[in-house]
Amino acid sequence: MDLDIVFLGTSGSMPTAKRAPTATLIRRGGERLLFDCAEGTQRQFLRSGIGLIELRDIFLTHYHADHFLGLPGMLKTFALRGRELPLTIYGPAGLVSLFKTLSRVFGRLSYEVQLVELAPGDVLERDAYRLIPFEVEHGLSALGYALAEDPRPGRFDVEAADALGVPAGEERGLLQRGESVTLDEDRVVTPDEVLGPSRPGRKIVLSGDTKPAAAVLEIAHEADVLVHDATFGDEEEERARETAHTTARQAGKLAAAASVRMLALTHLSNRYFGPELAREAQEVFAQTVVPRDFDTIEVRFQERGGPVHHKAGALETRREAAPEPEAVTVEEGA
Amino acid sequence: MDLDIVFLGTSGSMPTAKRAPTATLIRRGGERLLFDCAEGTQRQFLRSGIGLIELRDIFLTHYHADHFLGLPGMLKTFALRGRELPLTIYGPAGLVSLFKTLSRVFGRLSYEVQLVELAPGDVLERDAYRLIPFEVEHGLSALGYALAEDPRPGRFDVEAADALGVPAGEERGLLQRGESVTLDEDRVVTPDEVLGPSRPGRKIVLSGDTKPAAAVLEIAHEADVLVHDATFGDEEEERARETAHTTARQAGKLAAAASVRMLALTHLSNRYFGPELAREAQEVFAQTVVPRDFDTIEVRFQERGGPVHHKAGALETRREAAPEPEAVTVEEGA
Repeated sequence: MDLDIVFLGTSGSMPTAKRAPTATLIRRGGERLLFDCAEGTQRQFLRSGIGLIELRDIFLTHYHADHFLGLPGMLKTFALRGRELPLTIYGPAGLVSLFKTLSRVFGRLSYEVQLVELAPGDVLERDAYRLIPFEVEHGLSALGYALAEDPRPGRFDVEAADALGVPAGEERGLLQRGESVTLDEDRVVTPDEVLGPSRPGRKIVLSGDTKPAAAVLEIAHEADVLVHDATFGDEEEERARETAHTTARQAGKLAAAASVRMLALTHLSNRYFGPELAREAQEVFAQTVVPRDFDTIEVRFQERGGPVHHKAGALETRREAAPEPEAVTVEEGA
Repeated sequence: MDLDIVFLGTSGSMPTAKRAPTATLIRRGGERLLFDCAEGTQRQFLRSGIGLIELRDIFLTHYHADHFLGLPGMLKTFALRGRELPLTIYGPAGLVSLFKTLSRVFGRLSYEVQLVELAPGDVLERDAYRLIPFEVEHGLSALGYALAEDPRPGRFDVEAADALGVPAGEERGLLQRGESVTLDEDRVVTPDEVLGPSRPGRKIVLSGDTKPAAAVLEIAHEADVLVHDATFGDEEEERARETAHTTARQAGKLAAAASVRMLALTHLSNRYFGPELAREAQEVFAQTVVPRDFDTIEVRFQERGGPVHHKAGALETRREAAPEPEAVTVEEGA
C-alpha cells in the first residue's frame, strides 16, 4: 500500500514567492486526505501536477486564517465543476460557526458538506488505519493528527509451512491473511503456526501549529514521519514561545526524544529559506528534512528502508517552463 | 510619467497551473492601483518580483468570489506586518455588506480601511488623471474602470519663442507649464503663442467581467489599451451569452469599433491556453494580445510608439529556478 506526504504549502502565516501557506496532503492507496487549506491551495494542487482532485476529506488543525482561507475558493471551484460527491470537513470545536461565515462568501454549493467537530479522544476508524486527532498547544482550540496503520501480519515462515505439510497455493494465502486452514485428515493449521510476530503499521504525525507539546511527544513515539511546526530558528526562540510556535531545534529535540524515523519541518516564517532551519534541527536530530513546496516524503515500510524525501525542485522548474498541463474543462458562470 | 499594466492574474472563475484568477495592477509614476483581488493575489505580487507592496487603493469590479477572495489574506498579511497606512477599497454597491462578512474571517486589522461604494457617474479626480467607474453588463451590479490622463500641453514651438524674443531658461519653462511670462518693456507672452495644440493624455479601460456592452464601446473610444473580458472562444459564444461574458472575437470587434490602440484579453476560461483566443480576436482586430501572468503592457505616449506588450515568461522561469528573492521579514502570530 503506497503511503506518502505531499507538501503543498510550507510557509507560516503568509506566502513567500517560493512557499505557499499551509496545506499537506497524505496519499494512502487511493485515498487522499488534505490537512489544512490555506489561501491558494487549489492552485497548489494544479501546480503540483496532481491536479485539483475531488477530495472527500479535509482536516483543519485550527482556525487561524492562514490555515483555512483556501476553503471558499476550493469549495466554489468544486461547485463550478458540478460536483455531486459529498465532502466531509473535520476540525476542532468552532468548525460549524466558521463554515457558516465562510458560506456567506462562497454561496450555495452543488454538493453536500458534512462538518465534523473533533475532540481529543475521538478516533476515526478507517479501513486498516486510524486517524487520531490530539490536542496541541497553540493558544486556542487546536489539533494535531496522527495516521496510524493497523499492525500487519508477521512474515510467512515457509519452512514451518513445509514442515506442517501446507501445500503451495490457496492455503498459504489464507494463513497469510490470518485465517486457519484445514488440511487432509481434518488437520487444522492456525496462522500463528506459520506467521512470525505481527509487524507494526506505519505512523505519520502532523503536529499542526503548536509549541513543543507533551501530546506530540507521546503520540509521535516511533512514528515513521513527524511533520512539525518549525516557524522559527534559534534566534527567535523567545518569539516562538510568545506566539505558541516551535523552533527548528526544539522540534529536533522532540523528534529525538520520540525516536521518530524522520522529522519534516514546516510552517516556516518568511524570514527563513529552509536550509538554516534544517542545520539547527540536524544538530540534535540528524534525520531532519525541510521540504519545499511540492516535495514528497514516501513512507516506505521499515523493512524496505523507511521514509524517503523526494525533492520536486528540478521537476517543478521544468514544469514552469512547459506549456500548460491542465486538460479538464469545466462549466463556469462566475 | 511611467504608466503600465501588470497582469497578476488572468484566468476566469478558477485558477490554472499557469494562470491565477483575476488581479490587474496599474502603475502610474509612484502610484499603484489594484483592480480585483482574486485568491492568491498576495502571492502573485511576491512571485512577480514586485513584492507585496503597501497598496493604498483597491478597486473591485463586482462581487463574484473569483474577484475578491484574495482580500482577506492580503489584508491579514498587511496587519501581521503592522501596517498603519490606511487603505481604501472601492467597488459597486454591496461593498460595505461584503466587507462586513469578510471581516469576520480576517478579524481586527492594525490600520483603517475606508470603503467607497461607487456608482456610474462618479469620477475620482486624481493628480493629472481621472478614474471613471462605468456600469457594465454582467447580470449583477458590476463596474468597469477607465483611467484617463488629463490632456498635456502642446509641443513647445522653439522658432516662435525665438521670434518673440523669449530668452532660453526659466521663461520657457513657465510657458511650457501653461503660464504667461512678462518680458522686458512689460511685453506679455502667453502660452498659446508658443505651444502647439494640447495633446491627449493616455487612457486605459478595464472592462471587468461583462458581455459586449455599449458603455465599454463608448468609454474605450481611442483608448491606448482596452483590457477586456474574453472568457470564451467562438465555439462557446452561446455559453458566453448565458453567463454574461464575452468571446475573444466579440472583444476584438468592440476594440475595432472603439478604435483602441491595443486590446488585451483576460479572464480566460481554464479550457483555453491563450494563443487560440488571440488568433480569433486578431482576425477582427490585429492589435490584440493575450497576456500571461506577470506580463506587462507599457503604455507609452502615442508619439513615442504607443503601448508595448512585454512578456515575462523567460524571466519568470529563471526566477522560479533561483533562490528565494524575498527579503522583508515581518512579525507573525498566526
